[in-house]
Amino acid sequence: MAETDALHPAAPARSRGGRQSRQAQRGGARPMPIIAGVRRQIPTYDLLGEEGLVRIEAAIDVILAEIGIEFRGDSRALELWREAGADVDGERVRFAPGLVRDIIARTAPKSFVHHARNPARSVTIGGDRIAFAPAYGSPFVHDLEGGRRYGSLEDFHNFVKLAYAAPFLHHSGGTVCEPVDVPVNKRHLDMVYAHLRYSDKPFMGGVTAEERAEDSIALARIAFGAEFTDKNCVIMGNINANSPLVYDGTMSRALRAYARANQCAVVVPFILGGAMGPVTNAGAIAQSMAEAMVGVALTQLERPGAPVVLGNFLSSTSLRSGAPTFGTPEPALGSLVVGQLTRRLGIPLRCSGAFTASKAADGQAMQESAVSMLAAIQCGAHFILHSAGWLEGGLVMSYEKFAMDADFCAAMHTYLAGLPVDDNALALDAFREVGPGKHFFGCAHTLKNYETAFWDSAIADNNSFEQWRDAGEKTLTQRAHEKWRAMLRTYEPPPIDPAVDEALRDFIDRKKQAVGDMWH
Amino acid sequence: MAETDALHPAAPARSRGGRQSRQAQRGGARPMPIIAGVRRQIPTYDLLGEEGLVRIEAAIDVILAEIGIEFRGDSRALELWREAGADVDGERVRFAPGLVRDIIARTAPKSFVHHARNPARSVTIGGDRIAFAPAYGSPFVHDLEGGRRYGSLEDFHNFVKLAYAAPFLHHSGGTVCEPVDVPVNKRHLDMVYAHLRYSDKPFMGGVTAEERAEDSIALARIAFGAEFTDKNCVIMGNINANSPLVYDGTMSRALRAYARANQCAVVVPFILGGAMGPVTNAGAIAQSMAEAMVGVALTQLERPGAPVVLGNFLSSTSLRSGAPTFGTPEPALGSLVVGQLTRRLGIPLRCSGAFTASKAADGQAMQESAVSMLAAIQCGAHFILHSAGWLEGGLVMSYEKFAMDADFCAAMHTYLAGLPVDDNALALDAFREVGPGKHFFGCAHTLKNYETAFWDSAIADNNSFEQWRDAGEKTLTQRAHEKWRAMLRTYEPPPIDPAVDEALRDFIDRKKQAVGDMWH
Repeated sequence: MAETDALHPAAPARSRGGRQSRQAQRGGARPMPIIAGVRRQIPTYDLLGEEGLVRIEAAIDVILAEIGIEFRGDSRALELWREAGADVDGERVRFAPGLVRDIIARTAPKSFVHHARNPARSVTIGGDRIAFAPAYGSPFVHDLEGGRRYGSLEDFHNFVKLAYAAPFLHHSGGTVCEPVDVPVNKRHLDMVYAHLRYSDKPFMGGVTAEERAEDSIALARIAFGAEFTDKNCVIMGNINANSPLVYDGTMSRALRAYARANQCAVVVPFILGGAMGPVTNAGAIAQSMAEAMVGVALTQLERPGAPVVLGNFLSSTSLRSGAPTFGTPEPALGSLVVGQLTRRLGIPLRCSGAFTASKAADGQAMQESAVSMLAAIQCGAHFILHSAGWLEGGLVMSYEKFAMDADFCAAMHTYLAGLPVDDNALALDAFREVGPGKHFFGCAHTLKNYETAFWDSAIADNNSFEQWRDAGEKTLTQRAHEKWRAMLRTYEPPPIDPAVDEALRDFIDRKKQAVGDMWH
Repeated sequence: MAETDALHPAAPARSRGGRQSRQAQRGGARPMPIIAGVRRQIPTYDLLGEEGLVRIEAAIDVILAEIGIEFRGDSRALELWREAGADVDGERVRFAPGLVRDIIARTAPKSFVHHARNPARSVTIGGDRIAFAPAYGSPFVHDLEGGRRYGSLEDFHNFVKLAYAAPFLHHSGGTVCEPVDVPVNKRHLDMVYAHLRYSDKPFMGGVTAEERAEDSIALARIAFGAEFTDKNCVIMGNINANSPLVYDGTMSRALRAYARANQCAVVVPFILGGAMGPVTNAGAIAQSMAEAMVGVALTQLERPGAPVVLGNFLSSTSLRSGAPTFGTPEPALGSLVVGQLTRRLGIPLRCSGAFTASKAADGQAMQESAVSMLAAIQCGAHFILHSAGWLEGGLVMSYEKFAMDADFCAAMHTYLAGLPVDDNALALDAFREVGPGKHFFGCAHTLKNYETAFWDSAIADNNSFEQWRDAGEKTLTQRAHEKWRAMLRTYEPPPIDPAVDEALRDFIDRKKQAVGDMWH
């Protein structure tokens, strides 16, 4: 592949059409296809008119100018803000209307290529492209046989392998589960190594300390080369604001570490309405945008032009218990509006994936996940973290849910392909051939189009009751269990240059030996 | 209630806001609220641009002009078409471009009131109003205890009672399940009686023979009065085209019976791509619109101004088995386009509800149902049949799925309410009160808005893992089982005038005694 192709993987990826996607979901003997992101061929679903958007933008300006954002324990961030013309009062920073917007507009890229170790798997973040990544950050894992338990490095490896083997996930994710059996201060090394060794899809690194972010980037440099890494995005870090209206130093330093290295920070507030934000949607959206925009702007102050993604994570609460709820109507509507506002900023958007509060991979889980995922698709998100595996409000990474969600990601490829209206699709010759009262089974148009006509789930059961009964009356969860077991059984690691592998291991060994274990 | 109110139930229904809805879903000691339909406060999701719509409309014209529609065994329908200027050749009718559209545009109402026995429950069909009705037509029923079995009159009564007790279902439906223990030629009498006796919501009558349609309307006349019935819609009939491109006489005669009595025919093709229509979406949509438009126009030839609804039922197929699939991306996209085309006709639309091919009320069922139901909501449907209970591609009415879907209907009320952007929603004073790093639990804005802030499912479990485990690790299906059992246990029938009840029973007894039983 020529260098220019490697830098613009979106172009060849587009020519891989729906047919290859369909082959992928049916499995079969063909080699696993490479699907480097998916192209949006449908419009976004725009909920608000101009007036509503302008009112929310005005509220964002009031929050930023009047209340401001605190940067705690990061004097360099305060210095950058002071130089940029913000009003810095202790750790509180206030922003004149338009300041943050201007910084973003000046240098933040509209889209960028997030490179994978295998150049054919590089994804474009932004524009009409979308990348799906697995769920992130759960301390627990669950599967039908093993039950609910703390995540281990073995589980982490399993989920990296599963994401690699899932053709409709384009990205390896980051903390696919917490490997709780590895010391907290060394986990990032094993996690980044796993993404580089057991997958060749793009991935995310550590963010829980500035040094861990830098270690993660250093490992990426070994794999991609120092010069290439300085010029291209090869790793992402997921940075949470400490809502409401605070960035703690750990996060803002990690954010600056990624930006400084010209790597992508995904900046995402986490707002649970009524706790870290107001209970009304419009206010929570204004807060979320204000917090995220300030983080995005900080990346540009640290290094103008650094790749960056604005993130959105709105959640509702149960009126009865105050517990967080997911896949409910309010955050779905909220995502649609965040999508509109982010398009007006002209930068890439990360939005919620297959969210649920359910403890089981049951009907509640899949109803909530479908509502949440469709909102992400319809709102115009470019990077969809938590696309597969999420259970229990993010506390659990579920093996079965992972297989179920990965199948839904396949469905979303077909949804995003939209509805072609051309002579073949209109099928007038088929009507002429068949006529009233006859069937279309054998007509020329059906034979020509049948293979590629409909999305076919790998795990849904569309058989008759009798067939289903005789096959053991399995629920989707049970079929998903068989599916991920088979995926792991047939998993084969991608090749890696032994010299690179050795260099990665050396770096990790040295880092691990240099300090003692920390468990918190 | 004044007569003018009874004729415009939408007006008082609007003033019943979200608060009452929220009280309803939490249950409690208050009397069951009356929610007479729901108002759309969100835009539709428009998939195609003008060019695509015009191309499909041109294809509709070609199908109607060149291939035409057959009316089999209904000479009066042919006569009406001849009088209207269509080209009638044997039983084949061809329509010059624009003819069908003109007939519809001339007299078909943009919206109408579908009256309920309880005037407060009358619903407006059309405009910005939406009515949810339970699933229709399954021969089997299923519940967790009793398993899968043929439906009985007892099951029928149960589902009428459940739909009555479900505040977010606005309509009692029609054949909520087939009462297989009642002779085929007498079922409609028991079904219509059940809707009138065990509910006071609007309902549908028999369509399986012209005489049964007329019996159903006659029963409605007893309940509503002959004069009122002649001037107002008090019953609906669901009329299927015999796709592709055929109306059999049974259906077209039933359609004309409803129209003749100034009652609403819901005209709906059933197209399984690759069987009764082409495998490509645009062609299936053109066919569906062509068939439905001709049926809609026929109601207007039979009685100009008769209330009528254009229906849409597109389904995909499994590439592996040819089995019908539901809740897949293709029909979801198809619904969005059918919605756009129907708005251009200016008449009410019926669209698919909570569809699934799953045999169990599991994750597959709820994922597919959420995709299907959201498409109906987003496409601008006015009457959503199959909103609750549908399982196994319509072969089964499930008690648990009914409770799960009815809960999703509640969620859709909140979704349809949209996202207000006003001073209260923007919550700037809350930010001023709370400031960075604090929580919003006790702030004035939260206290003021908390009660009505978020939709709260009646059966989702949002508790902690430990709470859920200690409560028995119940899946959504198990909680739904408890829910419908409780709904039946606390069910109380609405009042009915004893004279009306006696007149209904007399009519039914006479009809039943007049002919022998038929079982097919």
